[in-house]
Amino acid sequence: MTDRSKSNPGEVQVALPPAFDAGLHFIGRIRTPWRSIADCPKNSGEADAICTIELDARYAPGLKDVETCTHLIALYWMGEAPRDMVVQQPKHYGVPHGVFALRSPARPNPIAMSVVTLLSADGATLRVRGLDCLDGTPLLDIKPYFASTDAKPDARVGWHDKRKGGS
Amino acid sequence: MTDRSKSNPGEVQVALPPAFDAGLHFIGRIRTPWRSIADCPKNSGEADAICTIELDARYAPGLKDVETCTHLIALYWMGEAPRDMVVQQPKHYGVPHGVFALRSPARPNPIAMSVVTLLSADGATLRVRGLDCLDGTPLLDIKPYFASTDAKPDARVGWHDKRKGGS
Repeated sequence: MTDRSKSNPGEVQVALPPAFDAGLHFIGRIRTPWRSIADCPKNSGEADAICTIELDARYAPGLKDVETCTHLIALYWMGEAPRDMVVQQPKHYGVPHGVFALRSPARPNPIAMSVVTLLSADGATLRVRGLDCLDGTPLLDIKPYFASTDAKPDARVGWHDKRKGGS
Repeated sequence: MTDRSKSNPGEVQVALPPAFDAGLHFIGRIRTPWRSIADCPKNSGEADAICTIELDARYAPGLKDVETCTHLIALYWMGEAPRDMVVQQPKHYGVPHGVFALRSPARPNPIAMSVVTLLSADGATLRVRGLDCLDGTPLLDIKPYFASTDAKPDARVGWHDKRKGGS
């Protein structure tokens, strides 16, 4: 995760609509070891720590059968990121990219998505691996990960591969 | 997609909080061949049709470099689904499951996630394969799909495998 509150050369900001179109409920909190953005792993691939997802009690019946899943999709809210930067230049990339070609938390709707490995489920608490967010991050959703539709092992992100010298 | 407006035996509804915690902007629309829920494919794995994602013009600069991606993650809003059904019994399953073990559009935050194959990008319009939603569905986000963190080909959903007679 990168601090996107300071704009860099090459970045593009847009005027956002004056009102929202829909509303979200925070349904729980994510507990991680990271208390500042500087401490967070750069992406969930580097996030080896065991984290916990604490679902609010009212939603706990919704976890029925989740324990039978090996992997889950977690959606969570990066609400402190700016929402108007449609072209961004994260410092570690050095050149600007469109927000929809980036996993930056700064986006028109700052919904982050991570695929996590489920380690255990106990009541309204899930122990998982694969998160990279700040401690206390609001949870939006949990979904079962279906390899049949969600796993695309041959997928490529061309601009990123090129940067690494890949084909 | 299943019509979840009618509750079935074994389902559990909860009281939702009286106010929202955050707001969303609809950033575009998804164009599909399906004009009613009954017409929609049951899941994106059965969705072979070519659909288009029409991003609002203000966000178009954010598509820079998206054309280099083979696959994208689309987040979209299933706002007509009930949000209070934490245990659900979709008709084609016959037994109740927790909402967080299902990909039902009826969930506390009705954000759907599909992995799509990018066929072409032209201005603010993307042609994709892999969507299963109604024509006109509001778009929330587009993200690049990174196989390194998003592809888990060995993932299992135990309750679903058991139903199919899998191991």
